[in-house]
Amino acid sequence: MSKQRIAVDMDEVLTDTVSRFQDWYGRDFGRALTAEDMHGRHLLEVVAPEHRVALRAYLDADGFFRDLPLIADSQRVMRELAERYELFVATAAMDFPGSFRDKYDWLQRYFPFIPTRNYVFCGDKSILNADYLIDDNGYNFERFRGEGLLFSAPHNARETRFRRVNNWSEVAAVLL
Amino acid sequence: MSKQRIAVDMDEVLTDTVSRFQDWYGRDFGRALTAEDMHGRHLLEVVAPEHRVALRAYLDADGFFRDLPLIADSQRVMRELAERYELFVATAAMDFPGSFRDKYDWLQRYFPFIPTRNYVFCGDKSILNADYLIDDNGYNFERFRGEGLLFSAPHNARETRFRRVNNWSEVAAVLL
Repeated sequence: MSKQRIAVDMDEVLTDTVSRFQDWYGRDFGRALTAEDMHGRHLLEVVAPEHRVALRAYLDADGFFRDLPLIADSQRVMRELAERYELFVATAAMDFPGSFRDKYDWLQRYFPFIPTRNYVFCGDKSILNADYLIDDNGYNFERFRGEGLLFSAPHNARETRFRRVNNWSEVAAVLL
Repeated sequence: MSKQRIAVDMDEVLTDTVSRFQDWYGRDFGRALTAEDMHGRHLLEVVAPEHRVALRAYLDADGFFRDLPLIADSQRVMRELAERYELFVATAAMDFPGSFRDKYDWLQRYFPFIPTRNYVFCGDKSILNADYLIDDNGYNFERFRGEGLLFSAPHNARETRFRRVNNWSEVAAVLL
């Protein structure tokens, strides 16, 4: 029997994108984004309305995705998953074409055991043919054909429709 | 009932990549690549062995995918398909990360009616969850879950395992 297949999102699942937002936002506007601010809200809802355009522009800025910190335990658990499953990384890069190269380079650096042919840069994730999708956005599961695992992030604290995994150790407990 | 979904390859299906190879190869090595040369063979098998590295490098060179000519009738038929199906473009861009931006810009220019969220830059196309895949490489159908339609190109002349469409008018006859 062929291996089951897992697709894994990047932002806020493998990469700590929030910390980069906090750094850049603090640098440019002199304000802090705290965990309390972000609980159950998207970043665009947290910042002052006049800062929203700048915040969105970060995502397409050269360097935003470069050298992003890792989410804790992601490398270790992904390496174990790669032995038992077909493992893909699927990231919604299409809204931010300036991010393509940074994301590609980041994956090669931190997850060299995943072949580049298993990277998927897409938009609508219902195009994925996989058994599991690990993602921090519940809307990506609505038309997904497999089982969604909602990876906890501050913004999704109020999402209750999908099975939740709070961290990579919990991913390991479910899938290994 | 939701619409059926079609995924369409780019190179040699939407874009006339072969003509760009012919142009650049002629420019750099002063030789012609004829239709007879290419019949049933991949370009890398056609050129002199000492030129293979240069030929592969074209695919990652800035500008190779820029302003590529269209395959005849592709715009017209794709526009009609987009009305009846969910239409995705799926291109194996991961071996050539230098091509990302050119491919993205080319699609926006020539197929503006396809939303960017329906672009998929990938490697292994068995990750696609679609009913049909139109592609010039038979190996992409081997693990594809839907039905493959082999779009004729010089290199695939000897492929007999899959249903063949010789041009976009034949695609229309099958799917419209």
